[in-house]
Amino acid sequence: MSDEIKYVLDEGRLPESWYNIAADLPVPPPPVLHPATMQPVTPADLEVIFPLSLIAQEVSTEREIEIPKPVRDIYRQWRPTPLYRARRLEKALDTPARIYYKYEGVSPAGSHKPNTAVAQAFYNKEAGVRRIVTETGAGQWGSSLALAGAMFGLQIEVFMVRVSYEQKPYRRALMESYGARCVPSPSPETASGRAILEKRADHPGSLGIAISEAVEVAAQSADTKYALGSVLNHVLLHQTVIGEEAIEQLSMAGDEPDVIVGCTGGGSNFAGIAFPFLGRMLRGGKKMRIVAVEPAACPSLTRGRYAYDFGDTAHLTPLVKMHTLGSTFTPPGFHAGGLRYHGMAPLVSHCKQLGLLEAKAYSQSSCFEAGVLFARTEGILPAPEANHAIRCAIDEALRCKQEGRSEAILFNLSGHGHFDMQAYMDYFAGKLVDQQYDESELAMALAGLPSVSA
Amino acid sequence: MSDEIKYVLDEGRLPESWYNIAADLPVPPPPVLHPATMQPVTPADLEVIFPLSLIAQEVSTEREIEIPKPVRDIYRQWRPTPLYRARRLEKALDTPARIYYKYEGVSPAGSHKPNTAVAQAFYNKEAGVRRIVTETGAGQWGSSLALAGAMFGLQIEVFMVRVSYEQKPYRRALMESYGARCVPSPSPETASGRAILEKRADHPGSLGIAISEAVEVAAQSADTKYALGSVLNHVLLHQTVIGEEAIEQLSMAGDEPDVIVGCTGGGSNFAGIAFPFLGRMLRGGKKMRIVAVEPAACPSLTRGRYAYDFGDTAHLTPLVKMHTLGSTFTPPGFHAGGLRYHGMAPLVSHCKQLGLLEAKAYSQSSCFEAGVLFARTEGILPAPEANHAIRCAIDEALRCKQEGRSEAILFNLSGHGHFDMQAYMDYFAGKLVDQQYDESELAMALAGLPSVSA
Repeated sequence: MSDEIKYVLDEGRLPESWYNIAADLPVPPPPVLHPATMQPVTPADLEVIFPLSLIAQEVSTEREIEIPKPVRDIYRQWRPTPLYRARRLEKALDTPARIYYKYEGVSPAGSHKPNTAVAQAFYNKEAGVRRIVTETGAGQWGSSLALAGAMFGLQIEVFMVRVSYEQKPYRRALMESYGARCVPSPSPETASGRAILEKRADHPGSLGIAISEAVEVAAQSADTKYALGSVLNHVLLHQTVIGEEAIEQLSMAGDEPDVIVGCTGGGSNFAGIAFPFLGRMLRGGKKMRIVAVEPAACPSLTRGRYAYDFGDTAHLTPLVKMHTLGSTFTPPGFHAGGLRYHGMAPLVSHCKQLGLLEAKAYSQSSCFEAGVLFARTEGILPAPEANHAIRCAIDEALRCKQEGRSEAILFNLSGHGHFDMQAYMDYFAGKLVDQQYDESELAMALAGLPSVSA
Repeated sequence: MSDEIKYVLDEGRLPESWYNIAADLPVPPPPVLHPATMQPVTPADLEVIFPLSLIAQEVSTEREIEIPKPVRDIYRQWRPTPLYRARRLEKALDTPARIYYKYEGVSPAGSHKPNTAVAQAFYNKEAGVRRIVTETGAGQWGSSLALAGAMFGLQIEVFMVRVSYEQKPYRRALMESYGARCVPSPSPETASGRAILEKRADHPGSLGIAISEAVEVAAQSADTKYALGSVLNHVLLHQTVIGEEAIEQLSMAGDEPDVIVGCTGGGSNFAGIAFPFLGRMLRGGKKMRIVAVEPAACPSLTRGRYAYDFGDTAHLTPLVKMHTLGSTFTPPGFHAGGLRYHGMAPLVSHCKQLGLLEAKAYSQSSCFEAGVLFARTEGILPAPEANHAIRCAIDEALRCKQEGRSEAILFNLSGHGHFDMQAYMDYFAGKLVDQQYDESELAMALAGLPSVSA
């Protein structure tokens, strides 16, 4: 086994294709349904808001999907990203475990999101699209799409949840630096925004409302499409470049993981690191445990129901089968904004249902404790979302210590925390409260799930 | 010539030594003077606040100084840093010039500062030091030393200019995340701090006061030393790892620079990229232009006097010969906090005096304009300091276009701007005023320079 701390792939070994897990699943995932007909959606249904090439990826069962050269040319600016062996963390934990982490924070936006933003911008540009409209909560996705838009000369318009727009001006400034237009949502620019503002002029907004506004704008112009930063199959597909690289890098290290860990909000960074390894396992490769880590305050995989549900609160999207807390469920405020979603990617949910992965939920204060230990040993200050993966990786390493086992643990460090310093300030000031969601609200949201006889 | 956009050095080619320009200078730099005796300072004078190993580097004339293995082991986490060819920026400028940039923002602190912070922490640790005290303005240096302290198990104490402490809580939070103690200066913890607070309880602080407090604390305990993040010879030395790598990377690219550009505050990132190339030139290598870029509001190289002056406003430091605006000069507020220093590194000043480099000054709004163009073409949002280098590189590329010359321009992108979003917000809101310094204040500050008959 190698004694390095960093495994850098030559640029020449940047993966040439994404990995599509649909090719290797023992049971195909349930179809996406049209809410009006309860029949599987057709490509034509989706063509209004997505280019055909992305719709084709959404339903593809090809194992390898080629990464177009212009996308690889942009990826090359920061990819392959480094894989690190966390030797100083291992020492601090006094564990026999070998801890590896893949670091996606080296992208210009500071997270894994550009992996799919660049791909989506490319396919839209290729399809003659001039403008992409999207929504963003905390702003990680919006700033990544803004970056990708700048690279391909596309106009980017971001509906940003108003409360975030006001509380997180720095993410907004990053989007504007890349030339994107950022609109606080609800806005007077759409019918759905106006309807809400009429009832309440100072409405703080929600991701659901912002999605409605973005979809509405996209559906109105032939040269405008919509983009989503997680959940959908094609988004997860684009993120598999992370795991594909990690496979090569671990082989450079002469090692193979026993446990793979990722944090899950919509599921894309988790799927990005886990699916390529899972695929190898499904094709007869080494058995390993795959652990999805979610916040205890928004626990779709551990406490949600596996059922058909809407992707948004306004019920404009198709119905997808996923682990969901109910589309009306509102998670309490916590700092890992990227993990505040009521549902889970259908492909991740399907794998969970098939018993191919485990799920764990952690409170945010225990995750920040882990993140600070990580920063002080490994030197990188993680994003609050990534702290969930770190917490779990540390717990696995401590288990190894207790059991006297030397396992290899791999986790995805999905982004840096330089935009999230307020969260660390709150943590150090003792202001981080581990808010629980409201059990009766969850029960109501689950009771309100659409009834689908499929 | 290669057609790549990124040149990554194998970890095995991380430089094994720093480059010391003192070995190649045609005239040795003037000595540092003790302000009481006006005689050259002795190592014994400095031993109270610095470990002997760093004092030795300060006066060394050896060309190559070995980078200790523990320092290289930390460097390896983010070094060698990438060298990029700015092809999209070239295209946007429609220039025949070849623009390269070395990107130091990939360090965990987001700038070049850890290059010396890690080295200084190592030598202090080796000398049995338990605690390092320093000052910081905007916080880039403080957070880098905090990071280095965490890596080597040293206690770090940072006197942070009070106005920055209050206005830049995120930098402070980063220091605290790394386990450092951050004290607003002036503080009641030192005699110099108390003296100032007695006169004015709400004093906003200054870099000069913070230096006084840090030096005072360091001088009081045998296990405590002081550290500086720029200006001194050994600090510049540690930064030459940047230029050493760039030489190798440009040779991979099959190219050699005609112009090298860096922004200058204290001078360390500039010297880091420029000195290794300058050394080759001094030893008979290819002639190239070397351009130092400073803010028009704090123009030590272009408007200052080359004279002996104090490094701090409280006149506790030795006298160094440098381009200075006078130690009582207060630059107007502008966003490139890392460039707000009244003096220039003595080695950089000496080279300027010998005609080995040029200097230019730019207003901050023209620098932000350049930084935004850079972000929209190259994808990386630069720190306000680095925008100065970008402005100059762009102007050089436009000159090449006008003259129809295909020159190679290399600049140092010293850090990312993720901690500086307020500056970009001000820029987009049209709130960036190009404040001029007060001409009569400059005249007075220059008139007040200590008279040294050397």
